[in-house]
Amino acid sequence: MLTIGGKDIYMKNLFFLLSFLTAASAFLFALYLYLWVKRQRIENEEIIRVSTLIKEGAETFMKREYLLLARFSAAVALLILIILPKPIWQGSVINNIAMVISYIAGTVLSAIAGKIGIMVATLSNGRTAEAAERSLKDAFLVGFRGGAVMGLLVVGCSLLGVAAVLMVSGDTSILLGFSFGASSLALFAKAGGGIFTKTADVAADLTGKVELGIAEDDPRNPAVIADNVGDNVGDVAGMGADLFDSNVAAMTSALVIASSLSGSAYLALEMVFCYAILGLLASIIGIATAKVGKDGNPTRALNSSTYVTTAIFLILTALATAFIEGFSWRIWASSATGLIVGLIIGLTTDYFTDDTKPIVRKVAHASSSGPAFTILSGTSYGFISAFPAMAGIALSALISYKLCEPIGEGYALFGIAMSAVGMLSIVGMIISNDAYGPVVDNARGLAEMGGLGEDTIRIADELDSAGNTVKAVTKGFSIGAAGLTVISLLGAFMAETNEVLLSLGREIITGFDIMSPTVFFGVLVGAAVPALFSAMLILGVDRNAERMVSEIHRQFNTIAGLKEGLASPDYSKCIDIATRGALRELIPAGLVAILATLVVGFIGGPSAIAGFLLGNIVSGLLLALFMSNSGGLWDNSKKYVESGNEGGKGSDAHKAAVIGDTVGDPYKDTAGPSINTQITVVSLVSSLCSTLFVTFSLFA
Amino acid sequence: MLTIGGKDIYMKNLFFLLSFLTAASAFLFALYLYLWVKRQRIENEEIIRVSTLIKEGAETFMKREYLLLARFSAAVALLILIILPKPIWQGSVINNIAMVISYIAGTVLSAIAGKIGIMVATLSNGRTAEAAERSLKDAFLVGFRGGAVMGLLVVGCSLLGVAAVLMVSGDTSILLGFSFGASSLALFAKAGGGIFTKTADVAADLTGKVELGIAEDDPRNPAVIADNVGDNVGDVAGMGADLFDSNVAAMTSALVIASSLSGSAYLALEMVFCYAILGLLASIIGIATAKVGKDGNPTRALNSSTYVTTAIFLILTALATAFIEGFSWRIWASSATGLIVGLIIGLTTDYFTDDTKPIVRKVAHASSSGPAFTILSGTSYGFISAFPAMAGIALSALISYKLCEPIGEGYALFGIAMSAVGMLSIVGMIISNDAYGPVVDNARGLAEMGGLGEDTIRIADELDSAGNTVKAVTKGFSIGAAGLTVISLLGAFMAETNEVLLSLGREIITGFDIMSPTVFFGVLVGAAVPALFSAMLILGVDRNAERMVSEIHRQFNTIAGLKEGLASPDYSKCIDIATRGALRELIPAGLVAILATLVVGFIGGPSAIAGFLLGNIVSGLLLALFMSNSGGLWDNSKKYVESGNEGGKGSDAHKAAVIGDTVGDPYKDTAGPSINTQITVVSLVSSLCSTLFVTFSLFA
Repeated sequence: MLTIGGKDIYMKNLFFLLSFLTAASAFLFALYLYLWVKRQRIENEEIIRVSTLIKEGAETFMKREYLLLARFSAAVALLILIILPKPIWQGSVINNIAMVISYIAGTVLSAIAGKIGIMVATLSNGRTAEAAERSLKDAFLVGFRGGAVMGLLVVGCSLLGVAAVLMVSGDTSILLGFSFGASSLALFAKAGGGIFTKTADVAADLTGKVELGIAEDDPRNPAVIADNVGDNVGDVAGMGADLFDSNVAAMTSALVIASSLSGSAYLALEMVFCYAILGLLASIIGIATAKVGKDGNPTRALNSSTYVTTAIFLILTALATAFIEGFSWRIWASSATGLIVGLIIGLTTDYFTDDTKPIVRKVAHASSSGPAFTILSGTSYGFISAFPAMAGIALSALISYKLCEPIGEGYALFGIAMSAVGMLSIVGMIISNDAYGPVVDNARGLAEMGGLGEDTIRIADELDSAGNTVKAVTKGFSIGAAGLTVISLLGAFMAETNEVLLSLGREIITGFDIMSPTVFFGVLVGAAVPALFSAMLILGVDRNAERMVSEIHRQFNTIAGLKEGLASPDYSKCIDIATRGALRELIPAGLVAILATLVVGFIGGPSAIAGFLLGNIVSGLLLALFMSNSGGLWDNSKKYVESGNEGGKGSDAHKAAVIGDTVGDPYKDTAGPSINTQITVVSLVSSLCSTLFVTFSLFA
Repeated sequence: MLTIGGKDIYMKNLFFLLSFLTAASAFLFALYLYLWVKRQRIENEEIIRVSTLIKEGAETFMKREYLLLARFSAAVALLILIILPKPIWQGSVINNIAMVISYIAGTVLSAIAGKIGIMVATLSNGRTAEAAERSLKDAFLVGFRGGAVMGLLVVGCSLLGVAAVLMVSGDTSILLGFSFGASSLALFAKAGGGIFTKTADVAADLTGKVELGIAEDDPRNPAVIADNVGDNVGDVAGMGADLFDSNVAAMTSALVIASSLSGSAYLALEMVFCYAILGLLASIIGIATAKVGKDGNPTRALNSSTYVTTAIFLILTALATAFIEGFSWRIWASSATGLIVGLIIGLTTDYFTDDTKPIVRKVAHASSSGPAFTILSGTSYGFISAFPAMAGIALSALISYKLCEPIGEGYALFGIAMSAVGMLSIVGMIISNDAYGPVVDNARGLAEMGGLGEDTIRIADELDSAGNTVKAVTKGFSIGAAGLTVISLLGAFMAETNEVLLSLGREIITGFDIMSPTVFFGVLVGAAVPALFSAMLILGVDRNAERMVSEIHRQFNTIAGLKEGLASPDYSKCIDIATRGALRELIPAGLVAILATLVVGFIGGPSAIAGFLLGNIVSGLLLALFMSNSGGLWDNSKKYVESGNEGGKGSDAHKAAVIGDTVGDPYKDTAGPSINTQITVVSLVSSLCSTLFVTFSLFA
């Protein structure tokens, strides 16, 4: 809660106005891109038919997901109303209502961004396919701009939401509710979408490729549309919600810590908004200027626009630091450190997952000794790949802390938070790159189904492969950002707890000692949670895929002429199964994570929770990096074999590589990226429940 | 270092005498068992021939290992002489020499226990096979007693060593050197032995079963003896050295913490020795009374002797607490908590890896959908299985702390240390159970090669299966014990660091704050190390197996008549490759772990190291539990399929289950159990280098 004068100052703050204006320009630019994409030619009837099916499928999933989420949110909102930030019987009705509204705003804004983003993405896939008939340059632009709408909306909505909530409430604690709303949605979108996409993928592969020997995108397979839908709900909506969540959490924790800085809270708050605004501006410029250069290399186009955005952000914030009184170069250096470490993590990921580099080739070579060696080598390199990333995050936290410590008390933690804000400043660009992936992936399939000819398919292939390469970088980046964000969430948790302790007239906490048994207890339990959570998701995919396989068998057995291509399968049934199952399998995993937090909090109090968060962050990062990188590694080593190495398609090495890829699918698209969200969710639950843990706990 | 009066008191202490007497009786009992085993009949010439080959192979490995270790130890000893506990130029020559001697004593005692243990184990396998011709009861006794020699020697040597070093030096810091010696040896024995055994296993399977289609123990396969040797060097010598290490570390850390207790250090030291002595006595009784009951069930025989030992230990320590003045019931309860949690972890492991329970069957069922599902489900359940164990360790640490906190300042940490001592009190029994495994496993192979008839093989099979079941329990137990031990090693590290700080006239450390950037930095890097370490070991197994496969191919190509069984293969060449490769692959992994510790220490000082140890313990426990349990799970689900379920041998489910088993082999026998040792090694390096970290570090 603010200690520097309350609403008045906020209402008058210039930075709120600037935030709204920047968000508005992001929205306008997104609208322009949307209209531009919509104007693109789409004529091929088969493409229109299939892309409509994909669009409808995605909408079905989103609708059902949002419906379930609405019920879930209603329950959570009721709980918040009763007990958060304080039990209602302790007389905090107004605050509790504000928290509820803030929570709902968080879910709704994220949902809107996801909904529109996916609408535009599913609008662009067919258009990208047809643009590929003209040229790679054109097709790239359609695919990229279709994805960029999501990127702009996510960053615009998060900036708008955070500024609005803070302006209206004048209380950074209430922001935690907003961030929790974003996290809840991310949990559904990322983990639920992840289960959906892999259910469809695995079931389609098992029945299609393995049992029937038909191609991946064969329209006879009842799961084929679900599979295409999955790419969109997993990578567009899921990734968007995930980064919305990280971005909001980074800003929130920076703001919570800023407001606890005695004396200079106001300036620190301004800094947070300023950096966020400049990051969005940099992303807008980066997106507007993205295009394939003369060399015709789409990977380079995506990467160079990321570098352009980074450079612009660094220059703009340097200018701000030079010209705005009180802005510190130390803070600027912290945020630059975060951003640079983010890029380094992305490049490390690239080293471990790019098939022009040695690791992918080694795993492909190991595959020629059999699938066990594919798994063993992929697992090993996945574990190794976690090391540089974790060391990078560790160093960046240490450097930011040491950089900002001299500014004043509390600034060291604020430095870490700004390092996370810096890392996430270019998130608009990152999401655009990421959403580009499923658009061109779909476009490739559509080009094939629409019979657009070999040249077009080759172009679509090239665009798709660029998407895969860049995806590894953005994924590593998003895990790194989450890592740094949760460190500052830990700081936010302490700030919140001290708020409570102060209000109770008790001594505040200055730290959490690892030699304390409650902290240690929390660390051990917290570290086990991401393993449990991801295992439950993976088993959920397995169970769900089994259900869908039965349905596919049923359709082939009961629909006459399906095998021969004379009758159409019932695509919607498969979409339905993937949707229901995804949401059903997700709930227990999410609840286990939240319950474990509550149990630890009520046993050991705030210090156990601090330990719990630490353990959770550390093992969560390790597992997320391991799973994402192993998965990407297996995927690309399969592709490497398929392109004619180690015996090529149909060889034993290929069979082994396919098994590796199947194992890697839920690792990299379900469990790995969902761990980020799990970490944010438990961090926010902890901060929100700090009053409860301080008041009621067994050993505290 | 002691603060309570120095040598005189120690020299006169009754508990030293009692420790020596108990150790001596363990040695005498071991001698009796050895002579008893030697007296058993062994007549079958084929069995004699093959078991001699195994014995010689094991001796070759041990000799080369010890030779390498001797060189390594010489280098380490030189380093210790120069810089530990303090740089020699700061005038601590005598202390440094004492530390060197203590270090060497640790390696030598562990080596002797390993050497004799393996000698007796390789002596008993053939005799067990022939005893199985008479009856299951007799065969069980030979197998069990052959393994028990190792159990008795390990506990006897550790008690003897710790008591002797402390008596002579009168300084608990010097004990750290002894413990580090034990750890160095364990690193070689466990990780090196683990690489050896899996190299041979994988290479034998790949060439024999897969390429040539011959049985696992077919004497034509040049790797078959290496495979049998591997069981002994991995499970007998490796496990023995591992638990020697854990046991010494548990006692050492309890003693270091005890000596820092102001006022009552003397009594606390007595308690540690008393509990260790009573644990060894309980193990002797348990071993002496172990036999198969009327129901003829060897699993029950092994388990019930474990329970008997536990009960005797609890009763004896209760009596000691009741009759010895100053002994506290709170300490007793802590050690009982540790012991009981150890058993619970063992039982959890059993639940996840026993084929009469649902998990193994689920994984077997998943295998019928293909190998990817074997891997995914086994990985998931492995991750889930880590949760109860980690929560158990966490709770046991919390309970012991809270139990002993009221006794006085510093007692809370001592309580945790005693909880580890309690958990490890029955280690003599645990090692006996574990060493029983490879003895009866070898016996089964020998019974087949010696043509002892179906009834005998059936009995040997039954004994073998009991070994596998019990192994899961002992493995879980040993990881749990390591977990609790390293918590107290963390305490020992703090005690050592404060010792140094006091001697420099600087302020002592009262804890390590997780919000401190150096601690956090350490935690992140520390958590990544076990992943890196285990990945390097697994890749080492892969590389080494590749070398052995080439050698096997060479032999089949160049030795005329080998395929037809007319000529003998060159077994020793394969043993040689496994040995050289194991040691070659081990060194970099060990060095990386130690180097990371030093780098973190010199960057962030003692607080970074404390964080490093915490991260290392937490992620190490998680990965060790995951790898051991997944590995056991896959092994047993393969056996479950082989016994006729899910299509039985030769079915697709079987092929998938075999792949799972191959992945699980290096998990459960190389990487998983070596992580324990890695954790102890870095903990001890940290404690030993505490002076250096305090004096020279960048950010401390």
